[in-house]
Amino acid sequence: MFSGAQISLYPMCDDFVGIIRGAIGALDPYRPRFRIETDDVSTLIVGPPDELFPAMRDLFVAASRTGTHCVLSATVSRGCPGEPDDPICTPIPGVQGVALDRRIAAAHAAVAAATPTGQQVAAQFSLYPLGADRHMDEIYGCIDFLKGSGVFDRSKNFCTKLRGDAGPVFATLSEAFLRFGSAGGHVALDLTVSANSPTAA
Amino acid sequence: MFSGAQISLYPMCDDFVGIIRGAIGALDPYRPRFRIETDDVSTLIVGPPDELFPAMRDLFVAASRTGTHCVLSATVSRGCPGEPDDPICTPIPGVQGVALDRRIAAAHAAVAAATPTGQQVAAQFSLYPLGADRHMDEIYGCIDFLKGSGVFDRSKNFCTKLRGDAGPVFATLSEAFLRFGSAGGHVALDLTVSANSPTAA
Repeated sequence: MFSGAQISLYPMCDDFVGIIRGAIGALDPYRPRFRIETDDVSTLIVGPPDELFPAMRDLFVAASRTGTHCVLSATVSRGCPGEPDDPICTPIPGVQGVALDRRIAAAHAAVAAATPTGQQVAAQFSLYPLGADRHMDEIYGCIDFLKGSGVFDRSKNFCTKLRGDAGPVFATLSEAFLRFGSAGGHVALDLTVSANSPTAA
Repeated sequence: MFSGAQISLYPMCDDFVGIIRGAIGALDPYRPRFRIETDDVSTLIVGPPDELFPAMRDLFVAASRTGTHCVLSATVSRGCPGEPDDPICTPIPGVQGVALDRRIAAAHAAVAAATPTGQQVAAQFSLYPLGADRHMDEIYGCIDFLKGSGVFDRSKNFCTKLRGDAGPVFATLSEAFLRFGSAGGHVALDLTVSANSPTAA
């Protein structure tokens, strides 16, 4: 299993470099378990699949606390056949052989236990279970979970929109990524999270 | 066939609203053939699959010409089973029953014919041919095309990076979206395009 994300942080202000530099320290607690590489378009984080969304949450909340309109965009992946296995990417428990309804219940319990951060966000994402004939079954199961997550906003074309505190929102995203699609299969997730938008509903 | 994209434009400056408003007129020539809806996170464009990337190119180049560091992020989709057919989304010719090597040659010819815009960009994207057992064959075929496109920068984890003039870069993205994955199948593409980055190579 290889799991990680290409992430980008977009503060909509003249001092975007200062805000990114100020927020990047939020990744420090994750560095011992992550491989992190940056270029001019995105930062790669490779690490345990269940720590990817907590790391993105902490980075994004640190940037958003400045009050600036900020967006985090990420391409998250696990089990990509073109990538080598990596010992820092541990397997995902509670998926293999577990019925969809039990996975939905476990995902709801995980979101209910999430700690609020005090930062409101809007998020939208698409889940891609690849190489599977029945990929829409997993997507519809995931949508069932999302509708009961407490942070469901609405379905949009090509994606689902969430809204609420960054704590349960990122927990919901993490559960969608970890519990749907096959346990050892190739799953990708395309994510946008926004805070402090002047046009937020 | 239903085709479209959720797109977002991120100008990294205090006057991000002004830059977005100034650039949005670049979509005017496409409006007669597109359905366009905006909320606080993204703008939906639904229309002919071969006009999606030209529309994104014109929007992005209009914003980037201000010299501001700008990013366009998009989730592009065709053939999603959860979406209704739409008469404004025409079928894609030259894919069904056409061998991979002939599709690669046709894609190269299309990119060679692209008009330069004068705007340099970096782009990275992931292609997701869904509901297909042999999805990696299409992905590897697409990577072969990209390596000969003239704007290939490098392979990264989870995505491929392009660099060059926005004309051939967006043409390359469009060909990747239109010619790989099955003609009537579900294909998604996750895109980030950046211009005027202070850290660009």
